[in-house]
Amino acid sequence: MSDAKLRKLMEQVAAGELKPEEAMKQYSFSPFEDLGMAKVDHHRSTRKGFPEVVFCEGKTEEQVVKIMQSLVEHHPVVLATRATVEQYEAVKKEIAAAEYNKLARTIVVRKAADEDQPAQNDHGRILILSAGTSDIPVAEEAAAVAEVMGNSVERVFDVGAAGIHRLLHFKEKISDANVIIVVAGMDGVLPTLVGGLVDKPVIAVPTSVGYGSAFEGLAPLLTMMNSCSPGVVVVNIDNGFGAGYFASMINRMK
Amino acid sequence: MSDAKLRKLMEQVAAGELKPEEAMKQYSFSPFEDLGMAKVDHHRSTRKGFPEVVFCEGKTEEQVVKIMQSLVEHHPVVLATRATVEQYEAVKKEIAAAEYNKLARTIVVRKAADEDQPAQNDHGRILILSAGTSDIPVAEEAAAVAEVMGNSVERVFDVGAAGIHRLLHFKEKISDANVIIVVAGMDGVLPTLVGGLVDKPVIAVPTSVGYGSAFEGLAPLLTMMNSCSPGVVVVNIDNGFGAGYFASMINRMK
Amino acid sequence: MSDAKLRKLMEQVAAGELKPEEAMKQYSFSPFEDLGMAKVDHHRSTRKGFPEVVFCEGKTEEQVVKIMQSLVEHHPVVLATRATVEQYEAVKKEIAAAEYNKLARTIVVRKAADEDQPAQNDHGRILILSAGTSDIPVAEEAAAVAEVMGNSVERVFDVGAAGIHRLLHFKEKISDANVIIVVAGMDGVLPTLVGGLVDKPVIAVPTSVGYGSAFEGLAPLLTMMNSCSPGVVVVNIDNGFGAGYFASMINRMK
Amino acid sequence: MSDAKLRKLMEQVAAGELKPEEAMKQYSFSPFEDLGMAKVDHHRSTRKGFPEVVFCEGKTEEQVVKIMQSLVEHHPVVLATRATVEQYEAVKKEIAAAEYNKLARTIVVRKAADEDQPAQNDHGRILILSAGTSDIPVAEEAAAVAEVMGNSVERVFDVGAAGIHRLLHFKEKISDANVIIVVAGMDGVLPTLVGGLVDKPVIAVPTSVGYGSAFEGLAPLLTMMNSCSPGVVVVNIDNGFGAGYFASMINRMK
Amino acid sequence: MSDAKLRKLMEQVAAGELKPEEAMKQYSFSPFEDLGMAKVDHHRSTRKGFPEVVFCEGKTEEQVVKIMQSLVEHHPVVLATRATVEQYEAVKKEIAAAEYNKLARTIVVRKAADEDQPAQNDHGRILILSAGTSDIPVAEEAAAVAEVMGNSVERVFDVGAAGIHRLLHFKEKISDANVIIVVAGMDGVLPTLVGGLVDKPVIAVPTSVGYGSAFEGLAPLLTMMNSCSPGVVVVNIDNGFGAGYFASMINRMK
Amino acid sequence: MSDAKLRKLMEQVAAGELKPEEAMKQYSFSPFEDLGMAKVDHHRSTRKGFPEVVFCEGKTEEQVVKIMQSLVEHHPVVLATRATVEQYEAVKKEIAAAEYNKLARTIVVRKAADEDQPAQNDHGRILILSAGTSDIPVAEEAAAVAEVMGNSVERVFDVGAAGIHRLLHFKEKISDANVIIVVAGMDGVLPTLVGGLVDKPVIAVPTSVGYGSAFEGLAPLLTMMNSCSPGVVVVNIDNGFGAGYFASMINRMK
Amino acid sequence: MSDAKLRKLMEQVAAGELKPEEAMKQYSFSPFEDLGMAKVDHHRSTRKGFPEVVFCEGKTEEQVVKIMQSLVEHHPVVLATRATVEQYEAVKKEIAAAEYNKLARTIVVRKAADEDQPAQNDHGRILILSAGTSDIPVAEEAAAVAEVMGNSVERVFDVGAAGIHRLLHFKEKISDANVIIVVAGMDGVLPTLVGGLVDKPVIAVPTSVGYGSAFEGLAPLLTMMNSCSPGVVVVNIDNGFGAGYFASMINRMK
Amino acid sequence: MSDAKLRKLMEQVAAGELKPEEAMKQYSFSPFEDLGMAKVDHHRSTRKGFPEVVFCEGKTEEQVVKIMQSLVEHHPVVLATRATVEQYEAVKKEIAAAEYNKLARTIVVRKAADEDQPAQNDHGRILILSAGTSDIPVAEEAAAVAEVMGNSVERVFDVGAAGIHRLLHFKEKISDANVIIVVAGMDGVLPTLVGGLVDKPVIAVPTSVGYGSAFEGLAPLLTMMNSCSPGVVVVNIDNGFGAGYFASMINRMK
Repeated sequence: MSDAKLRKLMEQVAAGELKPEEAMKQYSFSPFEDLGMAKVDHHRSTRKGFPEVVFCEGKTEEQVVKIMQSLVEHHPVVLATRATVEQYEAVKKEIAAAEYNKLARTIVVRKAADEDQPAQNDHGRILILSAGTSDIPVAEEAAAVAEVMGNSVERVFDVGAAGIHRLLHFKEKISDANVIIVVAGMDGVLPTLVGGLVDKPVIAVPTSVGYGSAFEGLAPLLTMMNSCSPGVVVVNIDNGFGAGYFASMINRMK
Repeated sequence: MSDAKLRKLMEQVAAGELKPEEAMKQYSFSPFEDLGMAKVDHHRSTRKGFPEVVFCEGKTEEQVVKIMQSLVEHHPVVLATRATVEQYEAVKKEIAAAEYNKLARTIVVRKAADEDQPAQNDHGRILILSAGTSDIPVAEEAAAVAEVMGNSVERVFDVGAAGIHRLLHFKEKISDANVIIVVAGMDGVLPTLVGGLVDKPVIAVPTSVGYGSAFEGLAPLLTMMNSCSPGVVVVNIDNGFGAGYFASMINRMK
Repeated sequence: MSDAKLRKLMEQVAAGELKPEEAMKQYSFSPFEDLGMAKVDHHRSTRKGFPEVVFCEGKTEEQVVKIMQSLVEHHPVVLATRATVEQYEAVKKEIAAAEYNKLARTIVVRKAADEDQPAQNDHGRILILSAGTSDIPVAEEAAAVAEVMGNSVERVFDVGAAGIHRLLHFKEKISDANVIIVVAGMDGVLPTLVGGLVDKPVIAVPTSVGYGSAFEGLAPLLTMMNSCSPGVVVVNIDNGFGAGYFASMINRMK
Repeated sequence: MSDAKLRKLMEQVAAGELKPEEAMKQYSFSPFEDLGMAKVDHHRSTRKGFPEVVFCEGKTEEQVVKIMQSLVEHHPVVLATRATVEQYEAVKKEIAAAEYNKLARTIVVRKAADEDQPAQNDHGRILILSAGTSDIPVAEEAAAVAEVMGNSVERVFDVGAAGIHRLLHFKEKISDANVIIVVAGMDGVLPTLVGGLVDKPVIAVPTSVGYGSAFEGLAPLLTMMNSCSPGVVVVNIDNGFGAGYFASMINRMK
Repeated sequence: MSDAKLRKLMEQVAAGELKPEEAMKQYSFSPFEDLGMAKVDHHRSTRKGFPEVVFCEGKTEEQVVKIMQSLVEHHPVVLATRATVEQYEAVKKEIAAAEYNKLARTIVVRKAADEDQPAQNDHGRILILSAGTSDIPVAEEAAAVAEVMGNSVERVFDVGAAGIHRLLHFKEKISDANVIIVVAGMDGVLPTLVGGLVDKPVIAVPTSVGYGSAFEGLAPLLTMMNSCSPGVVVVNIDNGFGAGYFASMINRMK
Repeated sequence: MSDAKLRKLMEQVAAGELKPEEAMKQYSFSPFEDLGMAKVDHHRSTRKGFPEVVFCEGKTEEQVVKIMQSLVEHHPVVLATRATVEQYEAVKKEIAAAEYNKLARTIVVRKAADEDQPAQNDHGRILILSAGTSDIPVAEEAAAVAEVMGNSVERVFDVGAAGIHRLLHFKEKISDANVIIVVAGMDGVLPTLVGGLVDKPVIAVPTSVGYGSAFEGLAPLLTMMNSCSPGVVVVNIDNGFGAGYFASMINRMK
Repeated sequence: MSDAKLRKLMEQVAAGELKPEEAMKQYSFSPFEDLGMAKVDHHRSTRKGFPEVVFCEGKTEEQVVKIMQSLVEHHPVVLATRATVEQYEAVKKEIAAAEYNKLARTIVVRKAADEDQPAQNDHGRILILSAGTSDIPVAEEAAAVAEVMGNSVERVFDVGAAGIHRLLHFKEKISDANVIIVVAGMDGVLPTLVGGLVDKPVIAVPTSVGYGSAFEGLAPLLTMMNSCSPGVVVVNIDNGFGAGYFASMINRMK
Repeated sequence: MSDAKLRKLMEQVAAGELKPEEAMKQYSFSPFEDLGMAKVDHHRSTRKGFPEVVFCEGKTEEQVVKIMQSLVEHHPVVLATRATVEQYEAVKKEIAAAEYNKLARTIVVRKAADEDQPAQNDHGRILILSAGTSDIPVAEEAAAVAEVMGNSVERVFDVGAAGIHRLLHFKEKISDANVIIVVAGMDGVLPTLVGGLVDKPVIAVPTSVGYGSAFEGLAPLLTMMNSCSPGVVVVNIDNGFGAGYFASMINRMK
């Protein structure tokens, strides 16, 4: 509860409009729903500009369904990530509006009334680059998150550093973007290249694509962390969600 | 054998009440049962206040059954952890009183005569917090262990740091607890938060929940190890048993 | 601010005893002193039962002096850890009551009026074991912290596992202790041994003593984390302070 | 060279305004100065919005001086980071306008003519939080970089998670900021907390502050990478420069 | 586009033989085919002397088929590595000339017209040694790659260091080779031995063969990296392709 | 070939008993059989006192069969380790005398004529201790290897450090042994304890038994490496074979 | 105390030859001297065949002197390792017979009466090989320890694998040795080579010699752990003492 | 000794031209000089095409001098790497022809008679690229080694990926080289870029330049190991010597 709201409560108490007990009730109202196994954070939409996103990995189908039902009641659009087909099907049975993106492994539920949807962001475009074909699932997760949050997204896949003319071919698109997400496994050099070309913020996503001393994504993570191009920040290995979310956050800055 | 007991033996020998050979037998009595593949430690109950707990991982069903049979003969309550359904079913065939907690993966066998059971500890409550829904199995293992050892346990799950108002909502419960177990994967920040709020001992349990650079629980383990809140100690990744055991141990201190 | 205090404020407001503005002032009172480079947490004493402890490593002498001056004004006893001789001498110039423990590298400032000092805890003794002679500085830090917090402390050093009769010799002392801190570097096996002998909580402190594949304390840290004795918890490498603090916290439980 | 410029060259060639050889000269003009040991990238200002920043670590004093002289000739403001006092003094001898920030270890050279300076960014404020006092040098590097790039910067230091009321006290400042940099060593939990409170982009900077299993900054790096708060991105350990640069980049987005 | 070609274009423009627009078209011709999920690099053959090699791991069967179809249209010989039987069979349906090497897991497609094939390299022989029998699949991948690139290859398998007379028996073959690839897991000592015997370039390939502290190939990787024999270079764990490619590259030097 | 044998050859040549060509043939006789995929080292028996042992992991059934057939022809007893049931059954079809030890995963083939068997070593007994029940397979591999090499072996399993009286109970057996193998996972403290009790060589075998920060055997490996008891050496994680082999080697010393 | 001795005590008590109190005194006699900071283990000589060896690293000069004085009183020969010149000089002042080996960094004190010295072991020779010149200090520590324990030692240094003929030149010496210690840094391949040549036990000592990815001895440690030659065991990085001690232990087996 | 030489010896023996004893002497001639602490490998020049190179790190000045004196007697050119100024000065006193390269830290001794020097290699040029200014010492070591081995070397420094136009500016030089060495710290992306541009063998050298998660060169090592450009091989961190040596080896192939 903000100080402003609390001061207002106190003034109502001082004015006799509110009894202390009632003021305490309002004060202690908990902006989340307690499902026992989960505390659904309905307040996050206000606090963070987008409702809580359901991370499905490690949750039972029943848990995913219950959490999503709770969210759908209060929010115009609800997103779940890392969802299996089985989790999706369990959700679909209870929430008809649920839609599945198999590549990105996301579930989206949108309310019919479009006016409640996040307004389409008109500030600029988020460009999502992937170094290889195998990095596409992570890139698509980022894209799905950015799109559901109201951004215009463009994808350019398989422009890794082994043939830099492929990247340079898209230089104009890169320059025109407002925010750039770069997804890469193995040596993870693509974010450094892109960061060296333009003055747009680059969000680097290492992936677990590779083998041997790629060590499940450790190699590209370290590469990106040590990027000699300024303007490059990093999220967790395979964290397409985090990149899409952060990109959306800065794309709506004004 | 304690020196006190040995001195007593010697006095009995000196008094002619005991022959040296008999004294030696008593001295060398081995307080364990040798099953070949296992040495069941029947002495642990005396030494540690609770009988040996059977860790089922890596044991065959036959081994689990035999070890539990040996323990059940001597102790009013017997606990096994990390038990699969198959191991439980094998035990159940031989020991009718066996009960399975699927979430916590524990098997408990209690003797009918309640008076032999660990007395309900009346000193205080052990509070078990989990950061996420996926951490619940580890939290439940801790709870099951603490309960079987005679403690009153309260659970509050999914109060991770991304929405701190969920945690603050339970501040009273946290203050009222005698001992607090905090279970968290991914970034593992919850124990630091809880440790900063109250003056109760916090037992932090990192979990393998997470992906990428969580490195199977290494990330939350290191976070907890380096906690800047005093009063936080750490057990092994996913070691709900260890946390529940230690919590019980200090909850009965007086 | 606790809900109880807030409710009281509201009742005072309702009773006209307090104006909303004054209530807000009391509500928003910040229980710390802002020194710019540090926010001294004067509230911690209430919240955690002991004032903020100053960790001197990485702080300039000037910073240490200023923070300690701020603390000394409000608290009967003040503790600083990891202090160099130079830091101590800088403090001593400004705070005559400062005392230095060279082995433990702690500075303690006690107010003259003894009645404000933490009451001597009479519940039991904290026993501090070290595996080797080189582990003594860390063990002494734990001892100094536990003592300044009002506990009776006993030390037994150099009872490592290579000659287990040295440990068994002190078995009575170990059994008589209320809480046991075990400090060990290299292979870090001592906590497992002690944990197997008695039913007292064991707080294991890995040290950076050793060479080669001890990897600056990683080896004993992992040993202790994976201890097969129940009732063992772990703090950070060389963290004598954390062990002493936690031991004191559980030693005063009732 | 952009395609547009090349097309223009070709049109000039077609129109006979330019001979092929001259066109080739313009085409191949290299926008950097070759000092042998360094290729000073004068083009970066155009490409990235700020001239090349000199990373002094591992360079001789002579190298730093020569590179800065080359940059100063072409740019209104020049920045060097990780500069020792010795490197600064060598620069100062040759470039009278050089100024040193001892805490941040930066050298800044500004041309007299203010109109060439980066315009003060009026979009919003960059808030820099540090968890501890020892993290201040890294935080100051971030601040120095953001300021020299034309941003308004606010600092709040030592608000680590062990006493969360210190952080909450500054909640308004946190909410008012446009971009937030959070600098933390040891357990590195502060970015998660801040990220959970507001909807502003959080740039997390792990530091090498800590000891034992902090492993020179690895622990807070992993904590931040695995942050359960969305909207948190990470830069390299102790990389105040990278955080300040990226913050400036997104602070000027519109 | 090389400067020479661009100068020629400009001269044609100057001579009126080419309009600026046509020159721009030729200039901007993108030497890759955009399949959406992949950008097939048809230019690589010119740039690197061999067409792009398809790395099948992490690609769907459909993706592999489409990429190979695109390559087969433009190149006389096409190679895919890390192909499963299923991927091969999907390719075979569409490209009748596809051939599978089960041991090496490679697919090769050769055009009928032999004259377009890479000429048989007559400079020397590439010798491929493996330390153990389990290393053969990696060694065969190297062999398959070297052969398809036109080299004469000889294989000697299972000559590990535990019985050095087996290696010395082949000393003549080793001396006669032009380039030597040494494939080894576990302790990875074979490259050091071979490198100590002859003055031929040794390309060391660590494999994930082994268990325990071989850590999936980390042990032999580090051994080879630290080889005390000069003339030894290293590629990624299990990277038979990289070794075969590099060996071919230096085998055709003159 | 030893110098002594070569000198003898030369003397025969000098005496005209042998022509140079024949001498060269004898000199260059290669004491291994080349199966292509394997070079079976028939010389090892002479050189190392026991024929080459077949490590079955990573080999096809066909490869195992062929290598064993080659060995069986020349040696009275042949051993294979890490054999699956399938590999054993393939061997059994071709070599009727093959026997499988399911627990130890070994295949042994003994020739009928007992006099060719390794003589029973009468110097002393090899004692094999395991810390837990789950460590038994590795301990049994060590036992199987030591037995097939002609040693008398005694097993004592599940005497881990959590209940040290179990270990002390067997102190006499420990003192009577000539060589001791200690197999332990998790914290790996048992070898240090045993090494502290007696003056017999202790061969420590870390196992991958454990979870979380045991990191697949890394924790006990480091514990054992840093053992503070002198007289302890270490072999690879789960390497029962290596321990049994080395124990046999020193047990026959005189 | 052994059971045999205890039984004897009891029989004396039964016979009235000993009062219970006196028996208890003898029983509880602690075979170590308590110096406070150290418990000198005078019993180790009986238990392990050689008195406690003083590891000087991390001990103050005063501590080293006191521990050695205590040992010298009870034992004919006393050894200290990792001693600095300063520690030696402090010892020399108090114990005139102390001798320093600068290369091995050992201090040895021998009593005048030779008959009390460890008898020269006549079973065989311990051969110590080093791969490089920089490995000599570790090799010399091993040699010093083995010699003071009564063994005949031979040294062959700088016979690393880059020039294997240097090793083969000493093949006879290698074959004639009873036990072989192999000291190597960098790639650590020498123990595998030696282990492949002969049937003598090989004790491998990795050293911290090397740079880059040798990672302070981790690389040779892993190489040796994964040695494909049977009969190789490993001690800690730079642990010449451990190798010399173990070699002596098995060299005196009969 | 080669078989051919041995056969010749035998024929001489058969012909009575040589007595067996004399043949044995020739056979056993050891092509190295035994200095005790070092075995100088005079045979390496024949075997590897260049005499043994002295690695000075970890050697005393006296050792370096003696080894170089031994080498200088037999070889026209002698090289030492990683030499300190002190080591150089010690050498210079004894060997007047010694020359020091301070940047590369090499000592070279050339005999006056030029005809004995390695002939200048005329096959092509070795190009040495460095990503940054701080990488120059490692690059210069590579250059010094390649030059002393008779190669023509070109250097282009500070062309890192943050400003790729600097690299592309030198594209012609890159295309003209016969072999390319790429030296880079931090993110280590330069070898991938260069490898993607041309069909020349690329030898990648990671350096320890960087901070934080560069982990002393681990980050660029992993980047290079996982390079997605074919034709890239890797040597140890900071191993300029190894790169220069290998480059020279393949540059003289024909």
